[in-house]
Amino acid sequence: MTIPPLSPADTTLTTQLRAQLPQAAFRADPAPYNREPRGVWKGHAELVLAPGSTTEVATILAAANAARVPVIPYGGGTSLCGGQIMPDGPTPLVLTLERMNRIRSIDTVGNVATVEAGVVIEDLQNAALDADRLFPLSFGAQGSARVGGVLGTNAGGANVLRYGNARELCLGVEAVLADGRVMNTLTGLRKDNTGYDLRNLMIGSEGTLGVITAATFKLFPRPRSRSVALMVTGSPAQALDLLALARGHAGDGISAFELISGVGLDFLAETMPDTRRLFDPAPDWMVLVDLGLFSDAETVMETIFAEGFEAGLVSDGLISQNEAQAVDFWRLREAIPEANRLVGSISSHDISVPIRALPAFIDEGRAQIAALGPYRLNCFGHLGDGNLHYNVFPPKGHDRADYAGQKLRIMKVIHDLVVAYGGSISAEHGIGRLKAPDLARYGDPVKLEMMRGIKALFDPNGILNPGAVLT
Amino acid sequence: MTIPPLSPADTTLTTQLRAQLPQAAFRADPAPYNREPRGVWKGHAELVLAPGSTTEVATILAAANAARVPVIPYGGGTSLCGGQIMPDGPTPLVLTLERMNRIRSIDTVGNVATVEAGVVIEDLQNAALDADRLFPLSFGAQGSARVGGVLGTNAGGANVLRYGNARELCLGVEAVLADGRVMNTLTGLRKDNTGYDLRNLMIGSEGTLGVITAATFKLFPRPRSRSVALMVTGSPAQALDLLALARGHAGDGISAFELISGVGLDFLAETMPDTRRLFDPAPDWMVLVDLGLFSDAETVMETIFAEGFEAGLVSDGLISQNEAQAVDFWRLREAIPEANRLVGSISSHDISVPIRALPAFIDEGRAQIAALGPYRLNCFGHLGDGNLHYNVFPPKGHDRADYAGQKLRIMKVIHDLVVAYGGSISAEHGIGRLKAPDLARYGDPVKLEMMRGIKALFDPNGILNPGAVLT
Repeated sequence: MTIPPLSPADTTLTTQLRAQLPQAAFRADPAPYNREPRGVWKGHAELVLAPGSTTEVATILAAANAARVPVIPYGGGTSLCGGQIMPDGPTPLVLTLERMNRIRSIDTVGNVATVEAGVVIEDLQNAALDADRLFPLSFGAQGSARVGGVLGTNAGGANVLRYGNARELCLGVEAVLADGRVMNTLTGLRKDNTGYDLRNLMIGSEGTLGVITAATFKLFPRPRSRSVALMVTGSPAQALDLLALARGHAGDGISAFELISGVGLDFLAETMPDTRRLFDPAPDWMVLVDLGLFSDAETVMETIFAEGFEAGLVSDGLISQNEAQAVDFWRLREAIPEANRLVGSISSHDISVPIRALPAFIDEGRAQIAALGPYRLNCFGHLGDGNLHYNVFPPKGHDRADYAGQKLRIMKVIHDLVVAYGGSISAEHGIGRLKAPDLARYGDPVKLEMMRGIKALFDPNGILNPGAVLT
Repeated sequence: MTIPPLSPADTTLTTQLRAQLPQAAFRADPAPYNREPRGVWKGHAELVLAPGSTTEVATILAAANAARVPVIPYGGGTSLCGGQIMPDGPTPLVLTLERMNRIRSIDTVGNVATVEAGVVIEDLQNAALDADRLFPLSFGAQGSARVGGVLGTNAGGANVLRYGNARELCLGVEAVLADGRVMNTLTGLRKDNTGYDLRNLMIGSEGTLGVITAATFKLFPRPRSRSVALMVTGSPAQALDLLALARGHAGDGISAFELISGVGLDFLAETMPDTRRLFDPAPDWMVLVDLGLFSDAETVMETIFAEGFEAGLVSDGLISQNEAQAVDFWRLREAIPEANRLVGSISSHDISVPIRALPAFIDEGRAQIAALGPYRLNCFGHLGDGNLHYNVFPPKGHDRADYAGQKLRIMKVIHDLVVAYGGSISAEHGIGRLKAPDLARYGDPVKLEMMRGIKALFDPNGILNPGAVLT
């Protein structure tokens, strides 16, 4: 795609917008919006706008489009793929939805939440809980991530196995197009077959086709009984057999089925030595199983454990006896990304492969990485979805900086392997800027052509998040 | 949208395709492809092609596109909205996928089925069952409807409440674009965030953006215990209260929650007098509840019934004691559309409204129809999704033909009311040709503009199913 030339967000635009928007829409300090969690990219935006309404978003986009100024739609700033930072080119305008953070309604008859794009995910979870409902989207950054970003990237997390990703939870969106037109498909209907699915075109487009300003989400009944267990298993293949066994007893009542590697447990011991060791020595592999049922979950979990043990799939384990223990087990799982950060990866990958192929992929990946050098590999995550976080670290005692030059080579080996297995180079984190070249390399060429056509149709001046998704 | 002038499927095109395709790809008799179930539209196609592979589909589309000949993608021919018939304009080519009816694989580890577009839905259900899995899409026409048509219209049915519609069940598609290019997004991955969601753009586009040739679908564990009940309830509002009560005991284990009206039962007695009357006199309202659980479903159903009775929501009922009774209760529900056909509706509507608003909508709709004349109204269906089949019939002893002139007026009253309630004029049947004018009238204008742009991008010559969806 040829992006037409863009102009910087200059004083002319600022002056124009000062006349059109209230003072509250202007953020004083651009610095926080020019940083991202991994410190890979640095932004250079000066003008950060925080509109208070859809109309104000439309005003901003119409002005930016007329002036051909790049716009970076901004949610919670938690992207690990650089979707929120434009590191070069004409100075962009950052459009943060943080002031549009109203939960408009929680409908407990229809089980629908209507929210503005700036609502923080954890706030929505809590509002649902207060109404005795479940909003199941759940992941590490949920305390910062906002609805708009989560829909923009089609975020996943631990409960996708049961409830689906952000896309599957969303019933409708309101979005402002590049030229300021407002597209309203903010229905809370469970069934609506009126025309092309432009809601799902907006979802996952990472702010390159429009800016989502509001959304409706499905809510669910809260399971009445919960049981969480950690089970030591011999291999990823055994873990998959255990998942099949668990499904036979709990069906779609399995809320999460997470793989934890011994390397991850080593990293925990290395970086957070005060963490209690639940198994000693640390097993090579274990799984976290989370059941949420309307019958007695603990009984079902005990059956799964006993049958898994008998079948030789489980050698040791712990079943939560109360909610505090359940939270404890999850804390262990959730501490692993933090331990990863403290160790410092050379290259991190958010990949998926067909579930059946996971064990072979893990074996072959380990061999290929070993052939590259004495790296440490922590591969863990959402086994039930075929989605692994597959991160490569320097040998113990070394620093990631010593291996920075190897990053692209490692990434290519892993992504080549993922594609050879029929997998995806971005399972739940999006493309952002990090993976835009790989999408161009590995993507279906006809799909890419049509994506470029759609981009040109929705954003002819190319002002929306330039450089993200499409290179 | 200005559709460029189209040409008829003439002997030049036929001669060209005879040289490119095997004899088996040519259907001898076009007559079955020019009829549709309600007899509203009549087609005039002469050339009916049944390709045996994606490559052959591509050959046909490339030729038709070059010759600017309209193409009607054809599934099972069961559309009630005329999506499968082009009644006027240049003679179209019918492209039936019926020979591409292979189930390529049933993966019981990943729980994914990979199928060609011509697979009949019931065949896929049975193949899943043989592998001890569930393919949950289920509706009256499942014995004829094919995968391509079901995805083209985003079909729904009775189990959407629990498992979602065709869109939510589909993981990936392969599609041939108007000019013969093949777009391959046929992944069976549970998580894949690589670029814009063109799969969902194809799904629900009713063959106007491309021809789906293959798809991957989610499969589910089969619930181990099932219980079906009919419960007599006082009103739609009470039925919703009962649904909430049932959710508290069975959560997302409720596979279906269907509303049945006394008028539907009267129609059954009138047209199929041999049908056993389960309740006498016929109640004004009842619901069919289908539980599929991994604990004992019958016990849970009894609890729901007992608490519903105690709360005054249920006055009478029957709980299935075995699978044969469960099938029997469903047969009653499924006989109602057949009874409707025998009585003969003046106008039928497939609508949805926000679930919370259903009781008020039903009351107001009844009053508005009564104001139009002494019509009989049978309103029934997927209460848990807010989706009603809302059909208007002549007074007893009269024929629909006497009221044919009232059809558009009735439809307008109902659709106006649906839109006033924030509902949808097409919940699960699609737009086809029947509702294309209403989509243009009621749809979000910005969405419609973008739809026209997408149509022009994917099908610049306008050959794909002209007149469907977009007028």
